[in-house]
Amino acid sequence: MLMDKLIEKIIELQSPIVVGLDPRLSQIPRHIKEEVFSSQGKTPEGAAAIIYRFNQAIINHICDLVPAVKPQIALYEQFGKPGIDCYIKTVEYAKSKGLLVIGDIKRGDIASTAEAYSHGHIGKVDIEGTSHQIFDEDFITVSPYMGHDSVEPYLADCKNYGRGIFVLVKTSNPGSADIQDMMIAGGEGSQKLPLYRHVGNLVSDWGRDLIGRHGFSAVGAVVGATHPEEGKMLRESMPHTFFLVPGYGAQGGTAKDLQGLFNKDRLGIIVNSSRGITGAFQSDPYKNFGEDNFAQAARAAVLDMRKDLMP
Amino acid sequence: MLMDKLIEKIIELQSPIVVGLDPRLSQIPRHIKEEVFSSQGKTPEGAAAIIYRFNQAIINHICDLVPAVKPQIALYEQFGKPGIDCYIKTVEYAKSKGLLVIGDIKRGDIASTAEAYSHGHIGKVDIEGTSHQIFDEDFITVSPYMGHDSVEPYLADCKNYGRGIFVLVKTSNPGSADIQDMMIAGGEGSQKLPLYRHVGNLVSDWGRDLIGRHGFSAVGAVVGATHPEEGKMLRESMPHTFFLVPGYGAQGGTAKDLQGLFNKDRLGIIVNSSRGITGAFQSDPYKNFGEDNFAQAARAAVLDMRKDLMP
Repeated sequence: MLMDKLIEKIIELQSPIVVGLDPRLSQIPRHIKEEVFSSQGKTPEGAAAIIYRFNQAIINHICDLVPAVKPQIALYEQFGKPGIDCYIKTVEYAKSKGLLVIGDIKRGDIASTAEAYSHGHIGKVDIEGTSHQIFDEDFITVSPYMGHDSVEPYLADCKNYGRGIFVLVKTSNPGSADIQDMMIAGGEGSQKLPLYRHVGNLVSDWGRDLIGRHGFSAVGAVVGATHPEEGKMLRESMPHTFFLVPGYGAQGGTAKDLQGLFNKDRLGIIVNSSRGITGAFQSDPYKNFGEDNFAQAARAAVLDMRKDLMP
Repeated sequence: MLMDKLIEKIIELQSPIVVGLDPRLSQIPRHIKEEVFSSQGKTPEGAAAIIYRFNQAIINHICDLVPAVKPQIALYEQFGKPGIDCYIKTVEYAKSKGLLVIGDIKRGDIASTAEAYSHGHIGKVDIEGTSHQIFDEDFITVSPYMGHDSVEPYLADCKNYGRGIFVLVKTSNPGSADIQDMMIAGGEGSQKLPLYRHVGNLVSDWGRDLIGRHGFSAVGAVVGATHPEEGKMLRESMPHTFFLVPGYGAQGGTAKDLQGLFNKDRLGIIVNSSRGITGAFQSDPYKNFGEDNFAQAARAAVLDMRKDLMP
């Protein structure tokens, strides 16, 4: 099961880090853009080709340092068909370099529809008796707003194909307070409970039958680094749930904020950084690498992040 | 603004109906499948070609009866690149036949990511100073779990391009109770309030500045037909919000269940039916049309639905 493999790679590399591949053209070096745009024009096809070339270079330079990458599908989907093609090729390329892939897709829909997402992304799609792997991510992110029947189809594919999901529980953005922080009445006993704690309990429950040899379920949770107190409570109430943690770096979360998210074995989280790694060449500490060496700058940023998280 | 146009077409056609294009190969006539599979093989490309041909026939036979269609992107996305191509071509074809298109995509992500979804689906994508319309739906569905900053980018594109969104409030599926029905403490005054009512209030607020000439905002809500009492309360508390209503027919909602969702002018909702229309040829009342006449069966089912909703 791939959650076990993820944990083993984190231990082996001493690197609870996932590099977010959220490509933005403004954060890609000019020389790549000029070369491709001059041959393919400023088209969706050109944008996709640029992004793929950029991703390949990043992957080549970080694949021995981290267990996983996390492409954010929105940044590919916005370019339509060539964008989706680039996303799928990025997943494929990352896996060919030994990386695990967390597809950040945040899908959420009723059962029969969720099944199509699940089969397409982490399972197999049946076409009149023939079986096809389409997106083929190892893990995906899932939104819980529609409840249990919107999540169950993914559980079946987690079981059948050893894959995993991370369900949104407490996200890193400011707006997460609007709904996730609502206090719900009559939670455990008669105590009030913020909604995200209730969602956390649902997520634990959904993952109950999928716990692997390291004590963590194939059903993980997304818990932002920007809410350290809330995260600590979630760690205590969800001992078997692995956390995918956005919000470190660019969004404001620090290594100190992550301490309460680890369990006593210093396991239990994988921390995402996107811009902080892939856009390192544009930021002060790494500017001296120069645009041409953007991938070396990304590597240096990963090494620094590892030192910061595992001192 | 397209919410106004949607309302005017509903009045003109006396048809508050949107036909859901949720193509499943098991619900497509054999003769279409055999012809395409024999030339293209049982491939994602073949599946996409079959679906596009099926959708075209359905669209041709219902485009004068209803204001809109609603393709469910999961059923296309599961086939990867050719699936997305088929989705985009379906949107295009429906619009060429005068239909409005509601893309059922239920995306939800942090601000910078939501912006990519919004630009790709209802806005324009900038590629180094050139502007591209990619998916080009008139409306899309959006998930609210991540709060205001996950919705704001769509509001900007609603404003800039006259488009609209429908935010999930109370969905039609059984699991909707798990999160949406949680009673939250300290709502209005000191009254308890189910979470979906709180989300409804947020949605009203997000749409406040986008109200059109018929009194409805470009920011609509998804409210299932399967919860008539809850829907009636939402109609009262959200007078300026248009409702996209799934759950009629196959999921169990009846015309009687919809009565409380209309306002006093008998406006305010558009009711979705997917299988009930596109799969009519497989169901008892329309079996006599035969597989070859699946699109005529769909037309008959739309006419019956209109009679049921607007007696």
